[in-house]
Amino acid sequence: MTALSAAAERLRIRSGAYAGQTAGLARGHVQANLAILPADWAGDFLRFCQANPKPCPLLAVSEVGDPALPTLGTGIDIRTDVPRYRVYRDGVLTEEPTDIRDLWQGDFVSFLIGCSFSFEEALLADGVPVRHIAMNRNVPMYETNIDCVPAGRFAGKMVVSMRPMAPRDAIRAIQITSRFPSVHGAPVHFGDPAAIGIRDITKPEHGEAVPVEPGEVPVFWACGVTPQVAIRTARPPIAITHSPGTMLITDLLNTHLSVL
Amino acid sequence: MTALSAAAERLRIRSGAYAGQTAGLARGHVQANLAILPADWAGDFLRFCQANPKPCPLLAVSEVGDPALPTLGTGIDIRTDVPRYRVYRDGVLTEEPTDIRDLWQGDFVSFLIGCSFSFEEALLADGVPVRHIAMNRNVPMYETNIDCVPAGRFAGKMVVSMRPMAPRDAIRAIQITSRFPSVHGAPVHFGDPAAIGIRDITKPEHGEAVPVEPGEVPVFWACGVTPQVAIRTARPPIAITHSPGTMLITDLLNTHLSVL
Repeated sequence: MTALSAAAERLRIRSGAYAGQTAGLARGHVQANLAILPADWAGDFLRFCQANPKPCPLLAVSEVGDPALPTLGTGIDIRTDVPRYRVYRDGVLTEEPTDIRDLWQGDFVSFLIGCSFSFEEALLADGVPVRHIAMNRNVPMYETNIDCVPAGRFAGKMVVSMRPMAPRDAIRAIQITSRFPSVHGAPVHFGDPAAIGIRDITKPEHGEAVPVEPGEVPVFWACGVTPQVAIRTARPPIAITHSPGTMLITDLLNTHLSVL
Repeated sequence: MTALSAAAERLRIRSGAYAGQTAGLARGHVQANLAILPADWAGDFLRFCQANPKPCPLLAVSEVGDPALPTLGTGIDIRTDVPRYRVYRDGVLTEEPTDIRDLWQGDFVSFLIGCSFSFEEALLADGVPVRHIAMNRNVPMYETNIDCVPAGRFAGKMVVSMRPMAPRDAIRAIQITSRFPSVHGAPVHFGDPAAIGIRDITKPEHGEAVPVEPGEVPVFWACGVTPQVAIRTARPPIAITHSPGTMLITDLLNTHLSVL
C-alpha cells in the first residue's frame, strides 16, 4: 500500500495496457469519480457539488486547462490516467474512449469526486460484509425521487447505491461511513425502497442487482453517478466523465479520509 | 442548568416533598439507574456490568457501606435521594419505599448506571423527534431473546427501549447516540421486532406503548432495566433498585458524557 503502487497502476493505464474496472487495484488508495466541463460551465457545477455534498463530495478541482491534479498524485495526467471515459455532447453519451488527449480543450476544468470504494474498504476491514463485493458484481445503483439542490443549469434526482445488510451490520456501517464525509458519508435511507421512489429493487438503473436476504434491509448511500444525471439534464456542449467502475487511482490513502 | 439545580432537586426528593418521575427535572444533568447489592454479590455484578456495557454502562460504584457518591455529586445520600426504590428479596419485588435508611446495611455497594434521558436530550436538541416524550408517556421497554454475557450468578435476557423513527431520523439518531457510550450508545437493532424475540410491539413489558407510524421503523436501544432482570434471575437475599422512571439526579452534565 504505497504511493508507488498507485503511480504504477496509473502508468499501466496510461500506456493502454489496462482499460478495465479499478476495484481492487492499488488497495488502500483513494479512487475518484471524474467530471470534466468547459470553464463557462464549471462555476455552476462547482456550486452544484457544494450544494450537494453527499452525492458530490469534491476531492479536487483542477486549474483551467491543466490536466494535472497535484493534490491527488504526482504526475497525474487526467487525459490518460482513467481506464475508460464517457463523452457527453449536449447531454447525450456519444463515445467511451480510453484516452481523451485528442478531445482536450484549453478551457477544461476537471472535478474529482469521492467514491464509495474508500468506505467499502473500511467496512470490510471492520468485518461488515458487502454483498456485491462478495458476489464479484458492480454495486447496484438506483435513480431516486430525491431532488438535488439545483445550481445554475445543473439539477436532477439523486442516484444512490444499495448494500443489503442485517440491522446490526447496518448500525455499524452507519457509524463507519459517518467518518468518511468526503466519500458520501452516512447513508441517506434504509428500508422501504418506495419511500425514495425506487419501484423495483431487483432492477437497478446502473450496476448489477444483488439479493436482499430475509432479515436484511437495503441500505442506500448517495452515489457519485449523480453528477452524470445532472450533466445529462444541463446538456453542456461537451462533458467528459469516467466510465462507471473505471476510476482515477490517486496517491491519497483511504484511511486519511477518515475524520474521526 | 447548574449543579445547584440538581442539588436542589435532590434535597426536595430527600425531604419527601417529591416522589414522582424525574424526567424533565434539572434539565441538562445526567440521571442514573440504581442497583444496590450486598458486598458478596457486588463482584459478580460488577463483572456482569463490565461484560454487558450497552445495557449496563457504569457511571459510578460506591465504597462498601458508604451511601455517598462523590464522583456523581456533592452530598449525595443514596439512601434518600432517589424518589422511589424497589426492594427485591430473593429475586422477588417486595416493596417500593421512598427512603431506604432503615434497610441500609454496612455491606451495601451502590451501582449507578447510565440512562437514556441523557441521549434523548441530545436527540431533541438536534431536532430528532422522540415519540414517547411528545406523547408524555414512559418509553416502551421490551424483554428480548438477546442473551447478556453471564457473570457468576448474574445472567438474563437484554431489555431494550424502543423509539419509532423515520429512517432519516434513525440514521441521525445512530450518529448522535454513538457519541454517548456511557448511556447505552448506539441502538442494538432496528426494524423487525421478531428478529430480537419481541412478539407484540404494542405490548411492552415495561413502560407504555407508542404507535409506530407508516414510514417509520422501531429503533431499539439497550436499556438500564436489564440489571433488574439479572437480579431477579440471580436472587440475592436483598437487592435495591430505583423504581422505573424515578432516577438519581447527578451533578454531571449530559454534554460531558459525549465522547466526540
